[in-house]
Amino acid sequence: MTPSDPKFLANIRIVLARTSHPGNIGAAARAMKTMGLSQLYLVQPYLFPNSQADAMAAGAADLLSTAHVCSTLDEALAGTTLALGVSARRRDIMAEVLTPPEAATRLLSDAQASPVALVFGHEASGLSNEELSLCQGLVTIAANPEYSSLNLAAAVQVLSYEIRQTWLAHPSWPRPEVEAATLEDVERFYGHLETALTELEFLNQGSPGKLMLKLRWLFARTRLAQEEVNILRGILTAAQSAKRRSQPRRNPDAE
Amino acid sequence: MTPSDPKFLANIRIVLARTSHPGNIGAAARAMKTMGLSQLYLVQPYLFPNSQADAMAAGAADLLSTAHVCSTLDEALAGTTLALGVSARRRDIMAEVLTPPEAATRLLSDAQASPVALVFGHEASGLSNEELSLCQGLVTIAANPEYSSLNLAAAVQVLSYEIRQTWLAHPSWPRPEVEAATLEDVERFYGHLETALTELEFLNQGSPGKLMLKLRWLFARTRLAQEEVNILRGILTAAQSAKRRSQPRRNPDAE
Repeated sequence: MTPSDPKFLANIRIVLARTSHPGNIGAAARAMKTMGLSQLYLVQPYLFPNSQADAMAAGAADLLSTAHVCSTLDEALAGTTLALGVSARRRDIMAEVLTPPEAATRLLSDAQASPVALVFGHEASGLSNEELSLCQGLVTIAANPEYSSLNLAAAVQVLSYEIRQTWLAHPSWPRPEVEAATLEDVERFYGHLETALTELEFLNQGSPGKLMLKLRWLFARTRLAQEEVNILRGILTAAQSAKRRSQPRRNPDAE
Repeated sequence: MTPSDPKFLANIRIVLARTSHPGNIGAAARAMKTMGLSQLYLVQPYLFPNSQADAMAAGAADLLSTAHVCSTLDEALAGTTLALGVSARRRDIMAEVLTPPEAATRLLSDAQASPVALVFGHEASGLSNEELSLCQGLVTIAANPEYSSLNLAAAVQVLSYEIRQTWLAHPSWPRPEVEAATLEDVERFYGHLETALTELEFLNQGSPGKLMLKLRWLFARTRLAQEEVNILRGILTAAQSAKRRSQPRRNPDAE
């Protein structure tokens, strides 16, 4: 695919999580379509379909009728190799923070080979920690520190605009050098990691959350390739076997 | 002033001409404030003040209460040295067409010394030819050719965003080399030009419109300096004197 091929943009999903005002969904669809984006994913929208959404979509009603309504963010991200969360800068998360042009370049580069996603949270509270933990990086729009509250559709407009300008500016895109792991594979790795670390008694079975979140952000920054996921899981399996073999020795009955 | 000085941004006016939906005025104010812009000018708003405008402004109600409501676009542009109209590309106008980053650079450069304006037209019909004739250039947001209809507040958001990003990216701005003419001075020059060309019988007194518009766009592209306006008006005065002196000779009674 070349940048002039609209299919290239069709690999970019705009994911709106837990949107409370249906008008914002319509306005976001309009913002997307003006910039040539078409893949709208809605996670637990409060009201959808809805007449206010239709009214605000104006000439972008087709994006609403083809929108994918999902019950979880995992579902909306299925098949993607890159998900970036749109958020104000957060000191509590060790995620890579990208500017909109950096995010656009990253998304467009990956979009040549596989679906990617830009994830927007709830209008007032933004993305939850759980939602952010499914993203590999944050995108922050540099706003007025005294009033940084962009309307949801306005944020969709700014990022869709940056994607289109970056898309138009580049005659060709370097293909990703390695085959990126899909979200599902990375999630299975995290599941494996948590199980293994619990077995190794490295994680407290009662509250693995905090440490697992830090490990997620660490791996998210590296953008795992499919092959790397396989290697890491091989290591975990080896560690688990070693641990299991070690346990009978500590059994007092065996001595 | 340095770019870190918010006064620098306070020289940039956002002018909304003939806005039909008050909600769009509020949403535009919010978009402006998120990017640190504060000077809102409204030309013949259909409904203002209005509760829908207040609701959409959210935390930017202060911009609405300090907004300048004007009865003409000339009034909104008084004192400015640069006005750029936001419009789709138009083949019928020989104006300079700028991208949003180019427009941001131009506006910020001039804003160091004097007020400048970004002018947005009616939601459905855009800027009229008369309104465009008061601008020195067009700004066009590269949109999806199949659906390029950005919502008014979305367009304000994109351009305010570009202004802020450009402002943040530059440690200092080159000062304009020459003292730019104010809009009022340029308008007086156009008035003088039209009078002189009519006296010279170059313009048809009945319908000077089309040709005057072309001349306006020609001079708009050059960004007239104050000194140049003085020179041009000097030339016009000289031409007028010559014409007036020439007329008695053509009087048959004098021969």
